[in-house]
Amino acid sequence: MKYRQQEKQEEILFGAAYYPEYMPCDRMEEDLEQMRAMGMNVIRVAESTWSSLEPTEGVFDFSWIDHILEAAERHHMKVIVGTPTYAIPAWLAKKDPDVMIRTRKGQASYGHRQIFDITNPTFLAACESVIRALIEHVAGHPAVIGYQVDNETKHFDVASATAQMRFVEYLKEKFGTTEALNDAFYLRYWSNSIARWEDFPDMAGCCHAGLSCEFERFQRKLAADFLAWQAELIREYSREDQFITHNLDFEWKKFGADIAQDGYSYGVQPGINHAEVDECLDISGTDIYHPTQDDATGAEVAFGGDIIRSLKQEPYLILETEAQAFKYWTPYPGQMRLDAISHLASGACGILYWNWHSIHNGFETYWKGILSHDLLPNPVSRELGTVGTDLKRIGADHLVIRKKNRAAIVVDNHSLSAMNWHPTDRDLSYNDVFRWMYDSLYEMNIECDVIDVTRLETDPYDLILVPELYSATEETIDKLRRFAAEGGVLLATFRSFFSDEYLSVYPDLAPHGLTECFGISYQQFTEPGRTTIDGRPVKYFMELLTPGTADVLHAYEHPYWSAYAAVTRNVYQKGTAYYVGCYLEKDQLKGVLRQAAAEAGIPADAFAASWPLVHRSGVNTAGLTVHYLMNYSERPVFATCPFEHCRDLFSGQEYTAGEEIRLADWGAAALEEM
Amino acid sequence: MKYRQQEKQEEILFGAAYYPEYMPCDRMEEDLEQMRAMGMNVIRVAESTWSSLEPTEGVFDFSWIDHILEAAERHHMKVIVGTPTYAIPAWLAKKDPDVMIRTRKGQASYGHRQIFDITNPTFLAACESVIRALIEHVAGHPAVIGYQVDNETKHFDVASATAQMRFVEYLKEKFGTTEALNDAFYLRYWSNSIARWEDFPDMAGCCHAGLSCEFERFQRKLAADFLAWQAELIREYSREDQFITHNLDFEWKKFGADIAQDGYSYGVQPGINHAEVDECLDISGTDIYHPTQDDATGAEVAFGGDIIRSLKQEPYLILETEAQAFKYWTPYPGQMRLDAISHLASGACGILYWNWHSIHNGFETYWKGILSHDLLPNPVSRELGTVGTDLKRIGADHLVIRKKNRAAIVVDNHSLSAMNWHPTDRDLSYNDVFRWMYDSLYEMNIECDVIDVTRLETDPYDLILVPELYSATEETIDKLRRFAAEGGVLLATFRSFFSDEYLSVYPDLAPHGLTECFGISYQQFTEPGRTTIDGRPVKYFMELLTPGTADVLHAYEHPYWSAYAAVTRNVYQKGTAYYVGCYLEKDQLKGVLRQAAAEAGIPADAFAASWPLVHRSGVNTAGLTVHYLMNYSERPVFATCPFEHCRDLFSGQEYTAGEEIRLADWGAAALEEM
Amino acid sequence: MKYRQQEKQEEILFGAAYYPEYMPCDRMEEDLEQMRAMGMNVIRVAESTWSSLEPTEGVFDFSWIDHILEAAERHHMKVIVGTPTYAIPAWLAKKDPDVMIRTRKGQASYGHRQIFDITNPTFLAACESVIRALIEHVAGHPAVIGYQVDNETKHFDVASATAQMRFVEYLKEKFGTTEALNDAFYLRYWSNSIARWEDFPDMAGCCHAGLSCEFERFQRKLAADFLAWQAELIREYSREDQFITHNLDFEWKKFGADIAQDGYSYGVQPGINHAEVDECLDISGTDIYHPTQDDATGAEVAFGGDIIRSLKQEPYLILETEAQAFKYWTPYPGQMRLDAISHLASGACGILYWNWHSIHNGFETYWKGILSHDLLPNPVSRELGTVGTDLKRIGADHLVIRKKNRAAIVVDNHSLSAMNWHPTDRDLSYNDVFRWMYDSLYEMNIECDVIDVTRLETDPYDLILVPELYSATEETIDKLRRFAAEGGVLLATFRSFFSDEYLSVYPDLAPHGLTECFGISYQQFTEPGRTTIDGRPVKYFMELLTPGTADVLHAYEHPYWSAYAAVTRNVYQKGTAYYVGCYLEKDQLKGVLRQAAAEAGIPADAFAASWPLVHRSGVNTAGLTVHYLMNYSERPVFATCPFEHCRDLFSGQEYTAGEEIRLADWGAAALEEM
Repeated sequence: MKYRQQEKQEEILFGAAYYPEYMPCDRMEEDLEQMRAMGMNVIRVAESTWSSLEPTEGVFDFSWIDHILEAAERHHMKVIVGTPTYAIPAWLAKKDPDVMIRTRKGQASYGHRQIFDITNPTFLAACESVIRALIEHVAGHPAVIGYQVDNETKHFDVASATAQMRFVEYLKEKFGTTEALNDAFYLRYWSNSIARWEDFPDMAGCCHAGLSCEFERFQRKLAADFLAWQAELIREYSREDQFITHNLDFEWKKFGADIAQDGYSYGVQPGINHAEVDECLDISGTDIYHPTQDDATGAEVAFGGDIIRSLKQEPYLILETEAQAFKYWTPYPGQMRLDAISHLASGACGILYWNWHSIHNGFETYWKGILSHDLLPNPVSRELGTVGTDLKRIGADHLVIRKKNRAAIVVDNHSLSAMNWHPTDRDLSYNDVFRWMYDSLYEMNIECDVIDVTRLETDPYDLILVPELYSATEETIDKLRRFAAEGGVLLATFRSFFSDEYLSVYPDLAPHGLTECFGISYQQFTEPGRTTIDGRPVKYFMELLTPGTADVLHAYEHPYWSAYAAVTRNVYQKGTAYYVGCYLEKDQLKGVLRQAAAEAGIPADAFAASWPLVHRSGVNTAGLTVHYLMNYSERPVFATCPFEHCRDLFSGQEYTAGEEIRLADWGAAALEEM
Repeated sequence: MKYRQQEKQEEILFGAAYYPEYMPCDRMEEDLEQMRAMGMNVIRVAESTWSSLEPTEGVFDFSWIDHILEAAERHHMKVIVGTPTYAIPAWLAKKDPDVMIRTRKGQASYGHRQIFDITNPTFLAACESVIRALIEHVAGHPAVIGYQVDNETKHFDVASATAQMRFVEYLKEKFGTTEALNDAFYLRYWSNSIARWEDFPDMAGCCHAGLSCEFERFQRKLAADFLAWQAELIREYSREDQFITHNLDFEWKKFGADIAQDGYSYGVQPGINHAEVDECLDISGTDIYHPTQDDATGAEVAFGGDIIRSLKQEPYLILETEAQAFKYWTPYPGQMRLDAISHLASGACGILYWNWHSIHNGFETYWKGILSHDLLPNPVSRELGTVGTDLKRIGADHLVIRKKNRAAIVVDNHSLSAMNWHPTDRDLSYNDVFRWMYDSLYEMNIECDVIDVTRLETDPYDLILVPELYSATEETIDKLRRFAAEGGVLLATFRSFFSDEYLSVYPDLAPHGLTECFGISYQQFTEPGRTTIDGRPVKYFMELLTPGTADVLHAYEHPYWSAYAAVTRNVYQKGTAYYVGCYLEKDQLKGVLRQAAAEAGIPADAFAASWPLVHRSGVNTAGLTVHYLMNYSERPVFATCPFEHCRDLFSGQEYTAGEEIRLADWGAAALEEM
Repeated sequence: MKYRQQEKQEEILFGAAYYPEYMPCDRMEEDLEQMRAMGMNVIRVAESTWSSLEPTEGVFDFSWIDHILEAAERHHMKVIVGTPTYAIPAWLAKKDPDVMIRTRKGQASYGHRQIFDITNPTFLAACESVIRALIEHVAGHPAVIGYQVDNETKHFDVASATAQMRFVEYLKEKFGTTEALNDAFYLRYWSNSIARWEDFPDMAGCCHAGLSCEFERFQRKLAADFLAWQAELIREYSREDQFITHNLDFEWKKFGADIAQDGYSYGVQPGINHAEVDECLDISGTDIYHPTQDDATGAEVAFGGDIIRSLKQEPYLILETEAQAFKYWTPYPGQMRLDAISHLASGACGILYWNWHSIHNGFETYWKGILSHDLLPNPVSRELGTVGTDLKRIGADHLVIRKKNRAAIVVDNHSLSAMNWHPTDRDLSYNDVFRWMYDSLYEMNIECDVIDVTRLETDPYDLILVPELYSATEETIDKLRRFAAEGGVLLATFRSFFSDEYLSVYPDLAPHGLTECFGISYQQFTEPGRTTIDGRPVKYFMELLTPGTADVLHAYEHPYWSAYAAVTRNVYQKGTAYYVGCYLEKDQLKGVLRQAAAEAGIPADAFAASWPLVHRSGVNTAGLTVHYLMNYSERPVFATCPFEHCRDLFSGQEYTAGEEIRLADWGAAALEEM
């Protein structure tokens, strides 16, 4: 049944993923009591339990899930039930070897999670059977408040015979004739053109950037379709008060520590398109993992939240975030609390940790939970208890906020894929550029939305930022030009607007369709070498911009390139267009962003603060503006209250204009204007 | 026939591996004469000659081996005959493609050595046939004194269908039911539990740390069984004066030089369990390769010897050690002699070099022999000649020693495997920690045994050192606790006693079962970051120890971790237990070890010396204590004689208490107390 | 028909590879007009167009090539037609899966170019069919002046069943019996000997250096045979005024920039033997890609030209060289012109750029052309226009030169392969040593030929340089000894003359057969460690030379190696032999080369100049000596005219002895002696 949103959020969801089936003994009572004592009110269960649920094909065992639901109800805990499909049982892999994914690198062996073929009929039939059985069984239970479809789903580079057959069908539908396909992708070179669809080759060996990225786009669609299909199955059984969500995640960046499992949420997700998935969800959800100790900056919590909140412009769920893990994620005192408040500051309406208890064997032994392996209270659980108690006390009405940002960053999975084929530099990925832009804003306390290019609407915004939009349709280019013409402030970086949607480079003067808008053009780009701007080295990449009507904000310093501009500003009709032709130092970029924001009418930070003092705000259900202040440093910081009268929802302390607000090391406040 | 040990060792075995079948011409007479002139008395032959021995299936050619044996007898050279099974002939690979090993990474192609499947029936039948034929042929020859089964055998990650079938049988026998298996390894998570044995998956894709390490343990057993089976075959033919040995080797560490063949003996062997193999051997044997020139420290000779000697607590054979090789192993003058004496100092009763002559083509062209490719006398052969002459002159009675060490290090292949799945740090392996501990003792001239945890007996020792014993059974934990309770000194490092034998983490306070013994516990561990101890950075890993009854020897210096201990000492009943919670600088560790050794009643070095002046001693057959002194440096060193009266067996020089003993650069002495 | 060389070269060929079939629209008229305006007279077409030429099997479409030829004729452009075989159409891969190459690493998937099996019958039949059809169609057209067979052909490690079967046939023919094969390669060790040819194993797993390198030699022969076969097919149709050429290329060195396509022409080609291919060509041709901006040195243009010119001792074609590409190859003003003149200075008679226009999609999007993606005139095209106009004005008679060099470097693909198996150092390849030697000469303005060892004739030379000739036949060794005995100056480096043609190390004193000639011998070599020469570290490798009759030019400085020589000079009969036993600093090597050159009677540079002022010369068709002067730096340089009277063919400026000649940054002159 279609979900009907509640009028009013009762309480902030606060809890954890919970896997009692993996415990050394039955501790359910102890666990749930301890959760309640910590102010928790929700658990997420079942999302990796297929082999427990259906130990042999067609034979289901619901006893353990009944046990959970019964106990949860008794302890007044809400339950989100996950479909168990992201880890398949061994019997399914034995039944049909093609259940195991074939990627462009070969076929996987059974063992790991997320290595099945999401187009395989045997797999899909088994999925349907277990989902129907599970959801039918649990849908009526009062503790169940919603469902999570699958888990951190991506396409995993599915390239099986089925997936490839479907790709050819997709191309046929898109292009009609092989001739049109050959033309769109310029396939004649290296003899890759085909005269008959049956000659279309296996994508495993494809080295054609445009065609490969089209395949990746198609693979993302397969993943999104898989989730939408699961959501439809669930809706055959679910109640109108039960939502469907999914834990969308981000490109993972290894920090080079261990053989497995190290890393953190870094940027735009290459393996699935969030905007495409979100259409089948009732509430947007996400998993955010981030560095801790000295590397905690809050940036991952912020950008992840901004991306997910921008999908529906509604509060969203943190379905997973770290408690503690490995040796790298042992938080300093105060950091657990600070990060929780940061999630609220981005607009979250619920926070679930991953996971309740540490797992005693398997692959994720060191991806620890709130409880360590000893299953005893510990510094992390104690600190989270203070958070839970506060959230309960203060309530969702005050703490959950909505935002109306005036700035937006435009992102694009397809350009991200393109950059993997045509990298700006080995050491500068698409997401590096995205983070360079995003983090600069974040550190300046300029809040923004993050918008997928396929859903771009320019109306709500005064400032639109476009990092490395390599692939841009004529329609997108038009939209952005009109935005500037009609009074907006547009800022784009190098390598934007270079190719069309098939990665075919536009055969005219760059930046395509926007030379007049930006008042510049360029024919060459180069490795910076010795080039400097204001004496500081340019890194990675630079375009040799020839200014037309534009003002030169920065020029290159180099024996041969000094005639060219690096950063320009152009008044275009009623608006302004900035072009950043190279990778500047971050504080140089901030200077340009500051100027553009000011020109867009976005006021400077009310606290005149910048990172590590982070200020993010919004309007709560009570209609009051809440200013979250977070100190991402180990030194106390002081701010001067710029509001007439406000109250820290956590401490209850009130401030009037000009009063000093002190934040302890890793401290935070939520100032509600009164 | 069962080997009957000789009453008395006639002479120290001194010789080389010899491959006349690989010579450009027949030089047998010249070679053997030159060996005799160098004081040599033994050659090892035949261990890689299957294709010469059996050029086509079932057709044997013994002519060349008869030629060797006849010449050896004539020149009074003893012969150790190796079974030829570690390199198979091409016809055997053609006969049955499954003879080539299938590992978890795929199937091997013919070419290299040691790439067959030791569970394959075709391979085993061919092995049996060639071993029976060869041993039957040579067993009666008077020159033959013993046999080597196979060569540096490991499991090579055999994961063929046969091996996997046997693994399932092994699990069935161990666990009885799939439910017990699921419980032991916590298989429910990620849906890896099975309800029927026939659902047990291929181990190739297994990402479950516990189950994978169990498979590796099983693979080590397969390798040990293979050698035991060979030994039994040989004993059907061998005489009671003929021994069986095997050249056990060590984890190999690349030093990152060339595409192949660089590296040296580094630590505990992951691919086979020495203790498990040793049961089928009459004399323990080993291969030790070590750095040379400025990187020669003697540490590899020492630890390799200590590991092998500890197996039977008897003298052992160096079956291979380097002469010269590549560009890296061109010894400085004196180093060949120094290393030979070092082997005796560890308790060896024989030294064979690898190999007599350099090989003129193939894979090991630069893994050179005593003779270079020119087959002429050279600096290395001349220096070894002085060693051989001395050994002959002085004799085994004086030079071969036995030890009764009071300290022991406990090692464990299974914990080593576990650390590959759950590394302490990318740059700190199990063997790095073992070497950190071992080398610290070695450099302090504290001698120790090295004991496999599965054969641990605590009785002989006063000090037991336990580095990273991640996986520890309740029985082992009990044994160590009792050792301390009854008056021993126990010292363990971080990450010990964390999991049981299946790598399931103990679900109670760490260190499991020993919180009282060590007087500490911990719930968290962390990357050290900026942490220091006495101003010096902590590296890789640290546990946040909460002291109970223990004294704090070192605490952490850090804004948030200063409340926690780093190194502790606890009086436990009649004994003492030290806990080292982090990776200290080596000299900081030495301070702790010094205190522990003193507490165990182990006296400080008689010479008050430390590396590069190495002192190792034991009692020879004549019942006299021999003190080997070795100078691992290019500067002469001086020591003061601490004994009433002693004699250098090599130079004949006598010393009385207080006299100065001079060792030239890379010099050595063997002081027999008189 | 056999090509009949023209009496006189009409004009210097100046043009580009041209792919109109890959353009976004038909721009043929515009393109050809612009080419003519830039002084261009030639295009190369069709070499990657199989799928356009034969869209389905047996169905040919010549319309587009007729369109090119018609337009070319109309615009007075010459055409070189390439056979389209280096990129196969998808239908061919579908027809027979074995068309895709199987290398020692496995079978390729369709997609990339150059990944077919050049021994596969289906592939060869399809090649023959398309070549016959194309050449028959175009041979009569007046615009067509020649053909290029395939493109940058190499063996690509073909190791299919067919290739391996042929290899066994080749071995049978070479060795007759398996016994002779076993002996030649010393196969008995590791049981690799065979008793029957049918036991010969798959080369995929071969780890035997000698046998593997023999296989690589055989693979190079397969590649050369493939080109010779194509040439013979063409000659069935071609006119006597139409030549056959091929674009021989060089070992490619990545500079570690991007995921694909970065790198440059670095040294001797491992994948094919230039000398073996050249026999089927009428005009030698080559592709040279080189660093630019601050890394432009001219060295690649020089050594590539010297290698190709030395094949026939005739002018040759640059069939591909870079216009601009990636971000790395954006030339500084003046560099395009300088490089073009450099090609002439090496003896080229034609220069074709790769390629005319940038490609808008696919794999090589950033491997740009003269025109960027915008297809507009740009700095590169404008600068090339000045070159083309000058070449046309001055003419081939004046600018194309022939050389008679007195020095030669001997190179060998087989030793190069050997060095991959037995590397001198991980960071010092065969080509590193070749470039160390070549670049030293180049920087000293000593011109040389580069001769394949299999075609070595010593007569024309006074100085012969032999870097790392690891594998040397007795015949080669004899030849070089006689050269020195009869008055030549011979200079060889470490690791030369070590093994025979099967990589079997000579079993006598090194350097084999030349101890008397060089007056030295050695038995050991070593990693240099702390060794210095004149206080400067020796790097990578050093042989411990024992001088006999030789003078010691440099000795080692080291506590243990100071008795050994590093560099020696020996008077041998009427000549002299230098031996360089280690990797010296380049300027130390130059000192030795200077002495050797002087001893060989080669005069010092007329301008007393050295890099970055490069001086290369020869005699033009008019019989006059032309001195090319090139300034590879961004500072102007000045030279004093050493000739009585000369004229710069480009500027027209005349100089008399003693007058100052100024070259601007990246400037060049061609001084014709009058």
